[in-house]
Amino acid sequence: MEESKFIEIAEKAKAASKKLAVLPTNVKDKALVNIAQSLNENSEYIFEANKKDLDAAKFLVESGELSKSVFNRLKLDENKMRDMVQGILDISNLEEPIGKVLLKRQLDEGLVLTKISCPIGVLGIIFEARPDVISQISALAIKSSNAVILKGGKEAINTNKAIMKVIQDALDKTEGFPKDALSQIFSRDDVNSMLKMDKYVDLIIPRGGNSLVKFIKENTKIPVLGHADGVCHIFIDESADKNKAIKIVIDAKTQYPSACNSVETLLVHKDFQYREELLSSLENAGVKIVSNPNEWHKEYSDKILAYKLVDSLDEAIEHINEFSSGHTDAIVTENNKNAEIFLSTVDSAGVYHNASTRFADGFRYGFGAEVGISTNKTHARGPVGIEGLTIYKYTLQGQGDIVKDYVEGIKKFNHKDL
Amino acid sequence: MEESKFIEIAEKAKAASKKLAVLPTNVKDKALVNIAQSLNENSEYIFEANKKDLDAAKFLVESGELSKSVFNRLKLDENKMRDMVQGILDISNLEEPIGKVLLKRQLDEGLVLTKISCPIGVLGIIFEARPDVISQISALAIKSSNAVILKGGKEAINTNKAIMKVIQDALDKTEGFPKDALSQIFSRDDVNSMLKMDKYVDLIIPRGGNSLVKFIKENTKIPVLGHADGVCHIFIDESADKNKAIKIVIDAKTQYPSACNSVETLLVHKDFQYREELLSSLENAGVKIVSNPNEWHKEYSDKILAYKLVDSLDEAIEHINEFSSGHTDAIVTENNKNAEIFLSTVDSAGVYHNASTRFADGFRYGFGAEVGISTNKTHARGPVGIEGLTIYKYTLQGQGDIVKDYVEGIKKFNHKDL
Repeated sequence: MEESKFIEIAEKAKAASKKLAVLPTNVKDKALVNIAQSLNENSEYIFEANKKDLDAAKFLVESGELSKSVFNRLKLDENKMRDMVQGILDISNLEEPIGKVLLKRQLDEGLVLTKISCPIGVLGIIFEARPDVISQISALAIKSSNAVILKGGKEAINTNKAIMKVIQDALDKTEGFPKDALSQIFSRDDVNSMLKMDKYVDLIIPRGGNSLVKFIKENTKIPVLGHADGVCHIFIDESADKNKAIKIVIDAKTQYPSACNSVETLLVHKDFQYREELLSSLENAGVKIVSNPNEWHKEYSDKILAYKLVDSLDEAIEHINEFSSGHTDAIVTENNKNAEIFLSTVDSAGVYHNASTRFADGFRYGFGAEVGISTNKTHARGPVGIEGLTIYKYTLQGQGDIVKDYVEGIKKFNHKDL
Repeated sequence: MEESKFIEIAEKAKAASKKLAVLPTNVKDKALVNIAQSLNENSEYIFEANKKDLDAAKFLVESGELSKSVFNRLKLDENKMRDMVQGILDISNLEEPIGKVLLKRQLDEGLVLTKISCPIGVLGIIFEARPDVISQISALAIKSSNAVILKGGKEAINTNKAIMKVIQDALDKTEGFPKDALSQIFSRDDVNSMLKMDKYVDLIIPRGGNSLVKFIKENTKIPVLGHADGVCHIFIDESADKNKAIKIVIDAKTQYPSACNSVETLLVHKDFQYREELLSSLENAGVKIVSNPNEWHKEYSDKILAYKLVDSLDEAIEHINEFSSGHTDAIVTENNKNAEIFLSTVDSAGVYHNASTRFADGFRYGFGAEVGISTNKTHARGPVGIEGLTIYKYTLQGQGDIVKDYVEGIKKFNHKDL
């Protein structure tokens, strides 16, 4: 696509975002219900498109160009479709996130300040092979009154086009819903165009592997919400309960090794008595232990675990604050004072005591749906729910009030929360 | 300064930030009281340093290299010093912003999630000639448990060094306060080093003119909190009250023309009856009206006002959403429906009805102190108080809980807010 053509898409998205910002809740919810229904009714059409992508992907798996796990994520079936539909209906049932009064304050008699939640504007969402992400992200964008420009993985191009067509048809049928609220781009060039468009695009959300996220973070001035690495740690303290330690580390490493919240580094206090038992349990669970590897920043995404013996809680915390990606880190201990120090001192989005790092997830946290997990230290951190797609503005209602009166002392502020 | 030397400063600031994160409220407040007292006791020392800067600046004003207004902002006197001291004491009296429980939720029996406010980490603050900013920003950083690296304007170098010495001495005397929480850099090269250090610096806050802020935004991957332009608008609707219109526009343009929240563009509905009277009142107040200028993006920062006649509320809103810098825009109208449309549709940090744009200010909003005004659409928007220097993390307290039990249906989440 020519850059000028992309600008046209972006301009239309911006214009649509202004209409979305004032769209009544019932129109948004009706749009979501229509999408859910449309997906249900057109599932065969989508499965056919998905079959084309799967056929093409099979060759790539055979030639080793595509991993088996990417292939599995690409595949849609009745179960995934049911989850997609239910996910959209769940989002329609979430509380209206826009127009919430966050603060109402009288500055003086008749002069009222209101802090009110509003959408961010235009979101640029870039994701890899999972086509079920499209419906979830679209639904979150609609519910939060944001326009969205989507770029899916090229392996899922037919599936994504089919899903978007079904969604678009459902939106066209929804009375009062603005056109151009959702659009789709397809090439790497389009992504590069988008990354430059800070005039139109307010937030970029990449959902995918490290290299995708790193590339995006390094090539845009637009705020990026997400995480590149998921280098999570578990520290087994001297007083850790043996069974909890074994259960938690095995869960955090083997339950879904390629997830960003699975553990990559195990730190064990030198005086933890059951060290040998812990390590042999891990080996029995198929985990390969790498003692003192050359680099501590590595995300294995496999049943491989870096391992280090530490002298103290302090050494563990120092190691984590140096090498953690700030995603999720855990301590296993029966010593509550040590747990408290760990929770307050480790500077990560999630800090856990006696629980598996795998709990770091918007659904498990009860957010209903998640945009992704952020390791940023501004705006939104950790699993990000729909709230992360909102910001606020201040309205001020006066009666002809001017600042001069306050500067000259004719009037005085009389701040009072209403 | 060599880059390696800067890295040393940044590393120490990062280390200090970890200690600040867990510093008890009373130590932080004691530090602030000590600073206030120290500034009071050493005001003569600071005035002497300030005199050096003023003497040097005088030459620059005479040769036209420095504006009279910058010179005035550079000058410290008893009044400004009293305000500085009071400002620090006010900040010490603010509510503790760290460790606030923002959400407490049971995910299941014995598995408790807590969302808790925490500092951002290391702030890089870059500001121009006003030396009184140093004490305010330092106090806000201390209260919010952030470390800070400060770069002041070169015109104020002696004053800034003296103030920092007084502050540092006060901190050294405060038992338990971490060294290296505050540091100062001096050259443009140091700023360039800092802008590259996203490993150490978590947020950059520039306080100064457009070109400073633009330069910084274009040259760093670190989040930047602030605003480059303040192109504010006032729209006089058909039904506007004549007196309110005249009062508000004159206040917004003349009360402090170089402020970022002063109005730059006046839009008047073609059917507003008192147009001629409004324009002549403005001219009588010394305002130069520029009808339909070549560019609508301009921040005059002077008693100059761009002027356009519009056919409708919609045209006014469209103009504002196209050309506003997203700072603060106002409508003057007696038509509440139009006011409502304006407040909900104009996409700016502040949107006002029948009030001067000059109210956009943290003190006027009752925030106690402000970091600056943000036109960002993520993290913090509008006047930013101490809350804008905080983020949150999630702690999870378990009993050996693992995700496998939930994936396999052995256990079920039971989300309940506590």
